[in-house]
Amino acid sequence: MGRPDKKPGSVAKIIPLGGLDAIGKNMTVFECDGDIILDDAGLMFPDDDHPGIDLILPDYTYVLQNAHRLKGIFITHGHEDHTGSLPYLYKDLDRPVPIYGTKLTLGLIEGKFAEHRIKNAKLVEVKPGDKVKLGCIEAEFFAVNHSIPGAVGIFYQTPAGNILHTGDFKLDQTPVDGVNTDFAALSRFNRIGVDLLLSDSTNSMNRTFTPSEAEVGKVLGPIIAQAKGRVIVASFASHIHRLQQICDAAVASGRKVVVTGRSMIQNTEIARRLGYLRIDDENLVDAYDLKGIPPEKIVVMCTGSQGEPLSALSRIAGGSHKTVGIEEGDTVIISATPVPGNEKSVTRIVNMLAKVGADVYDKRRAMVHVSGHASAEELKLLLSIVRPVHFMPVHGEAVHLRAHAKLAEETGVRREDIYILENGESLELSDKGVRFGETVQSGVVFVDGNSVGDTSQTVLDDRASLGAEGFAVVAAAVSMGQRKLQGRVQVEMRGITGGDDPYLLEDAEGAATATLRRQLSGSTSPKDMRRAVRDTLLSLLWERTKQRPMVVVSILDV
Amino acid sequence: MGRPDKKPGSVAKIIPLGGLDAIGKNMTVFECDGDIILDDAGLMFPDDDHPGIDLILPDYTYVLQNAHRLKGIFITHGHEDHTGSLPYLYKDLDRPVPIYGTKLTLGLIEGKFAEHRIKNAKLVEVKPGDKVKLGCIEAEFFAVNHSIPGAVGIFYQTPAGNILHTGDFKLDQTPVDGVNTDFAALSRFNRIGVDLLLSDSTNSMNRTFTPSEAEVGKVLGPIIAQAKGRVIVASFASHIHRLQQICDAAVASGRKVVVTGRSMIQNTEIARRLGYLRIDDENLVDAYDLKGIPPEKIVVMCTGSQGEPLSALSRIAGGSHKTVGIEEGDTVIISATPVPGNEKSVTRIVNMLAKVGADVYDKRRAMVHVSGHASAEELKLLLSIVRPVHFMPVHGEAVHLRAHAKLAEETGVRREDIYILENGESLELSDKGVRFGETVQSGVVFVDGNSVGDTSQTVLDDRASLGAEGFAVVAAAVSMGQRKLQGRVQVEMRGITGGDDPYLLEDAEGAATATLRRQLSGSTSPKDMRRAVRDTLLSLLWERTKQRPMVVVSILDV
Repeated sequence: MGRPDKKPGSVAKIIPLGGLDAIGKNMTVFECDGDIILDDAGLMFPDDDHPGIDLILPDYTYVLQNAHRLKGIFITHGHEDHTGSLPYLYKDLDRPVPIYGTKLTLGLIEGKFAEHRIKNAKLVEVKPGDKVKLGCIEAEFFAVNHSIPGAVGIFYQTPAGNILHTGDFKLDQTPVDGVNTDFAALSRFNRIGVDLLLSDSTNSMNRTFTPSEAEVGKVLGPIIAQAKGRVIVASFASHIHRLQQICDAAVASGRKVVVTGRSMIQNTEIARRLGYLRIDDENLVDAYDLKGIPPEKIVVMCTGSQGEPLSALSRIAGGSHKTVGIEEGDTVIISATPVPGNEKSVTRIVNMLAKVGADVYDKRRAMVHVSGHASAEELKLLLSIVRPVHFMPVHGEAVHLRAHAKLAEETGVRREDIYILENGESLELSDKGVRFGETVQSGVVFVDGNSVGDTSQTVLDDRASLGAEGFAVVAAAVSMGQRKLQGRVQVEMRGITGGDDPYLLEDAEGAATATLRRQLSGSTSPKDMRRAVRDTLLSLLWERTKQRPMVVVSILDV
Repeated sequence: MGRPDKKPGSVAKIIPLGGLDAIGKNMTVFECDGDIILDDAGLMFPDDDHPGIDLILPDYTYVLQNAHRLKGIFITHGHEDHTGSLPYLYKDLDRPVPIYGTKLTLGLIEGKFAEHRIKNAKLVEVKPGDKVKLGCIEAEFFAVNHSIPGAVGIFYQTPAGNILHTGDFKLDQTPVDGVNTDFAALSRFNRIGVDLLLSDSTNSMNRTFTPSEAEVGKVLGPIIAQAKGRVIVASFASHIHRLQQICDAAVASGRKVVVTGRSMIQNTEIARRLGYLRIDDENLVDAYDLKGIPPEKIVVMCTGSQGEPLSALSRIAGGSHKTVGIEEGDTVIISATPVPGNEKSVTRIVNMLAKVGADVYDKRRAMVHVSGHASAEELKLLLSIVRPVHFMPVHGEAVHLRAHAKLAEETGVRREDIYILENGESLELSDKGVRFGETVQSGVVFVDGNSVGDTSQTVLDDRASLGAEGFAVVAAAVSMGQRKLQGRVQVEMRGITGGDDPYLLEDAEGAATATLRRQLSGSTSPKDMRRAVRDTLLSLLWERTKQRPMVVVSILDV
């Protein structure tokens, strides 16, 4: 296993802090002989398991504990699942650690940092082909195709061996911006020797090839050209290639483009300023200047492809958008796929649009969206070009990582050289090969309102229970000295079926009063008294409503 | 438009009470000259918009108001979205109205009625080809393919004209049970004359053809034959054709079939008893008799294909199933598709299984599931065979109904003869053609615990708010007479980030106390006092946590 270029005794550590339990919050630590690089710093958007939570961050305690050794942060591309925890991490670090990324990646990070009022950021632009040496780790950035421009993979050369991280990628032979995944670089890395490959597993369960982004343009063009009324296209705001194709199709059909939705406005502005999105000023119309332009002369490019209730598309569909209306005969294109968990919200909007009489196109009807991630044949192709000694699938749920591991085995990686990790586990690479290292602290941190990390599982469990069954409150004043009830017992219910029924309330108050009186006549402690009242109310509610809501009992000693 | 066989002055009414706003709770009223037939009586399972709700029924008030004219209930097939509200409806009717269905349909209804302790049911078995005349409405049942055996469509002949309802169907040329959709009958109905066609819109947005159920068997066979360890197949318990194919593949591979999961056990028992599912006793093993049979000799057929947390598959995946274990090298087949809204739950189980080391097959990896509904080309084929004068798409969301309407137009139905209805709207068919009739009461009724129809939108809104943000309770005792606070003010919080922080609680009690004292020093009413305390607490919580939870204030006058 040893290679002559390796320094005996050197050890490189690979510690994923996120990205291996879900598609989201990617963050991996690379270490070598004391130097640390952080590769990506993403977040994840919460689902039904996390009621009320705004954002989910990976637990990066390990990075903070070793912050003095952190030489730099490398960001592979500008998607939030690779950049989103940067503002939080940056606020927790006591110095501006340099962040390396391509122009668009940094442009998007700058936008986020401005929102968070972070002013001391140290952003260092890199181009594909650039090498950055931090401590004993040399990183070479190379171009990959993905659903955002400026995406790169990173080849790490260390005294302990070489590690290739693909980043998120696909192998698009007809990329919209002309930038191919750099096969020459991959072949070169193979010649240099890839001791460990970390590769994107998102689409490892999809057979064959992911279609080229250019195929979407071929579909969008005719739809927009043949549309009679307004055309409204919802897409991901960061999908600049898609936006380019929408703009091109609009201009080719003699339509002006109207951009609406906060992140869509922000991202098109950044992408145009940095030269990633090309459309003439004369073909862009401000949403407030729409008056006088006939519907058949515009294409609205908007947010809301995930059915977000406050997004531009939702407001358009519901008739509450300030400037963009919708009417029978208009065309709506959902140029995106619902992220798992968002299917219902998207369905809701599609139906609202259908009822207005809009002609709705989504992925089912025409190829108005393709993925930005490589499918099985592409993943195998990459493995064949790179020929890694060891393999670690990343960026996916358990099932994707395992499917990817199988593909690697099929291309010739030995089963014992494939490592499926959990977040927080680590690998150690040295001239002796690869082995499991120590496990470090990992997990998730919830962002809820302006609190980061203070939301406990108990809070989430309480929310889940309240959301399903509601609650009842009992308030009673007693004199513990005289062991006497003072005044009336009050019961209130919220979120309980029948909770507004005056007879049920009356019975509940009666039952609670009777229990309290019984408890007071003995020598029960306040705590036991609360429990007895709670049990009484739960029995009554179960009997009457077959529901078991949360019950909070306040006993005031007056 | 008039035909000589029509009786001038006769009017047939078609009143959909469910099925036109969503895929679920199908229920349509057919009336002619005073006689009423109810066609299907389904329910819908709730989604995130209905927190805590068990079931959703169509509002069938109109049926109850006209119950004296109700001659019979026709059920097209045994799926719960066509049968599920029968027990509730039956309990609300004051006499046992006859229910007509095929043998399996009635068998499944009988099972449900037994659970509801309904004993007076009047079930009348029909076979494809049978005609039933109730009042002036003659119904002919004809065979269709669907993802359950014994599915039929219904051809209604009335003095006002003829109406064809397809029921749920597909055009499977190689059906597992040998029963084809009855093309001869459809052609005959065309010759007789179809004044109005109601056809299944579920898959109207899917291009081309739905694959034959037999294709699934071709995929299941080799997977099961080549599997090394245990094979576990999760599917819909009512999908008897699928179960038959699983049993056949198991037996062909020399494996015994183990059935687990309440509804899977119940349905296989009913289907075997009625002759719809054929497997020898010796090839069926009770889950409790598994000991001694090596894993590679069994196929477990179980519930849980939707990721339901208490289902057999969930318990197997989590290692908490009483008799069925799972280990590395076992094979799991998810022979179903997640119903929209269930994607996340299914994903969760698939990942649990992957982590154990099971080889998981789902729709993405191999064709282990096909739909039971006709796609666009099949729908057009049916329209071409039937050649209806008027068309009303049914069984779908707004977007499906409109897509189906387009298909009808493409096959030659005139645009002005296509009617897209909302639940509760009605059509009137007479020798003069079709027109919109009166709108009747419609909507949804929630089943929550043992309450039917008592869950208000307020309760659901409260649950949604509680589920996202939690609540705080303030309890205080005052003497309104002396306008003095008695004892300590108590605050409790649940589901609030930081709600267990003693400093926050202390500050909240302090703020509430100060506000109350201020209010008591004036002449504020108890109601305004409550509002003031609530506002104080909301301001504090917003300032500290950026959350705006529900706040309930109890002020006890002692």
